[in-house]
Amino acid sequence: MAAVKVAILGFGTVGQGIYHIINEKREQFKETLGVDIEIAKILVRDVTKPRSNAPQDLITDNFEDILAIPDLQVVFEAIVGEEPAFKYSALAIENGCNVITANKVMFSKHGLALQEKAKQYGVQVGYEATTAGGVPVIKTMQNILRVNDVHHIQGILNGTSNYILTQMRSEGLAFDDVLKDAQSLGYAEADPYNDISGQDAFRKLMILSALAFGKQPRWEDVDVIGITEITSEQVDKASAKGLRYRHVADVQLGENGELIAKVGPELVGPEHPLYSIEGVNNAVALDTNYIGTLTLVGPGAGMFPTASVMVEDYADMLAKQTAPVTI
Amino acid sequence: MAAVKVAILGFGTVGQGIYHIINEKREQFKETLGVDIEIAKILVRDVTKPRSNAPQDLITDNFEDILAIPDLQVVFEAIVGEEPAFKYSALAIENGCNVITANKVMFSKHGLALQEKAKQYGVQVGYEATTAGGVPVIKTMQNILRVNDVHHIQGILNGTSNYILTQMRSEGLAFDDVLKDAQSLGYAEADPYNDISGQDAFRKLMILSALAFGKQPRWEDVDVIGITEITSEQVDKASAKGLRYRHVADVQLGENGELIAKVGPELVGPEHPLYSIEGVNNAVALDTNYIGTLTLVGPGAGMFPTASVMVEDYADMLAKQTAPVTI
Repeated sequence: MAAVKVAILGFGTVGQGIYHIINEKREQFKETLGVDIEIAKILVRDVTKPRSNAPQDLITDNFEDILAIPDLQVVFEAIVGEEPAFKYSALAIENGCNVITANKVMFSKHGLALQEKAKQYGVQVGYEATTAGGVPVIKTMQNILRVNDVHHIQGILNGTSNYILTQMRSEGLAFDDVLKDAQSLGYAEADPYNDISGQDAFRKLMILSALAFGKQPRWEDVDVIGITEITSEQVDKASAKGLRYRHVADVQLGENGELIAKVGPELVGPEHPLYSIEGVNNAVALDTNYIGTLTLVGPGAGMFPTASVMVEDYADMLAKQTAPVTI
Repeated sequence: MAAVKVAILGFGTVGQGIYHIINEKREQFKETLGVDIEIAKILVRDVTKPRSNAPQDLITDNFEDILAIPDLQVVFEAIVGEEPAFKYSALAIENGCNVITANKVMFSKHGLALQEKAKQYGVQVGYEATTAGGVPVIKTMQNILRVNDVHHIQGILNGTSNYILTQMRSEGLAFDDVLKDAQSLGYAEADPYNDISGQDAFRKLMILSALAFGKQPRWEDVDVIGITEITSEQVDKASAKGLRYRHVADVQLGENGELIAKVGPELVGPEHPLYSIEGVNNAVALDTNYIGTLTLVGPGAGMFPTASVMVEDYADMLAKQTAPVTI
């Protein structure tokens, strides 16, 4: 039985989810993955904060303690924001450690560079959790891209916006009222700017673009419009015509190989693959050359969906190692 | 550049699709997969039938010719029906050859045994194409099962049935009229029994059951009902209530670990994950413990969707071989 040491960076919702799943499944993973996973350290900002859900001796606020773990195999990066997440991820890779991240702000900007660095150091980067939460769009796309070309991606990538638009239509409520409800239900942050402005969906779209096309459009060329200007009257008028507002992140390959991307509200009819995606769900529709249109739907956020796809990233790395070598 | 030899068993729609994709992408695969794939032989029933789409010297009706190919790496099994598909697949495995199959009739019955045999001989079996055509439900489930438990699977697994139900509702037509249309459009076979009786969906459900739960229910315990008894009046009455008929294949784990499975028409409302799946699409909704409900939607049949996921099975085998070994 191989004992492996992992560390968690950031101990908010997602970090705690990883801690929970790895401990809950530790015995099972010995059998199914063939490894005994030990969480060796957890990096936090404030070590003095009382924590009931992890032993105090695992907690540190010093990244040097993480790098000092002997034979550290994987860092689960669940920090919010670009820095120090990028710096720590790069350092981990340079120390021969695999990185699995949920950080869309960091990865949308530095993902291609981190993957390049990982190649150079012979380690892997998992980033399923950066985009669409529990929906395995990254692995699905990595897989189909081996044979198919993806030429158009349309996604509902922000559950908060989709929840608000759904409630405005189904309950006939105004934007502000639904936002307040969403905040009290935990579906929207106290500061909802990133969600309702479209910036969150934009970052996730850039991650999908880098994967599908190996590049991103120039960020300043992408129109990013949120849902804040949509009125109840517009929603009612659309409903009367059998249409629904969806907040759609959209990137496609133009005829000359250029990328055309936009993020904003769209009116879609029943034939559209995103028409039926309701509530806090996320969805991604991929137009491909051989398969046609493939749509994935599921929870776009949440402690366990997000944390579980990060642990799956790790399991996937192990599976690649232990695969039969006969082919 | 590693040159690899593969063979295709059966040269109907799917077999021809594989031949087309491998040749169309051969140069690209040299770069992306690192192999030069040569189709060494194609097994058919009738060698005298004129074929414009493959050189005559590749064609054989003798399976011994397939086994005699030196260093044969992969057999793409695209035969219809249980035999000789099972016999050939087993022989290929015993000869150290990987098998990739699209054959739901064979695999629903012999899949677990073939996978056991493959383990024993150190080769792999790919079967993405057996279920839901171009929708990558097998690989998605293999991946999420490493961390999540799947406890309930509901699928629209037969595109013909779904097309007929969709047209009956949206066009107000009778079953027999839609079936005739479907046959003239190529969406239904001349003998539509397997599709409209539910038998086709049943076989695919058994494949999903074996993957998710490691076992199947006793086949004779599963109620399998087709769509042939549904009348226009019933469809209209459902529509008036905001409900839709869907032909649903359903398997779940009962409280005592027993499997409960059924295949048949169900009335579903707008909140159901399969409500919005229209036309010839297939869909599978997986209820999991951490992620929640994940739904995959896409084309359930067709030459290129089916053939491309078989080539992806092969690419996946290669990716497992060539993965970094640092973890």
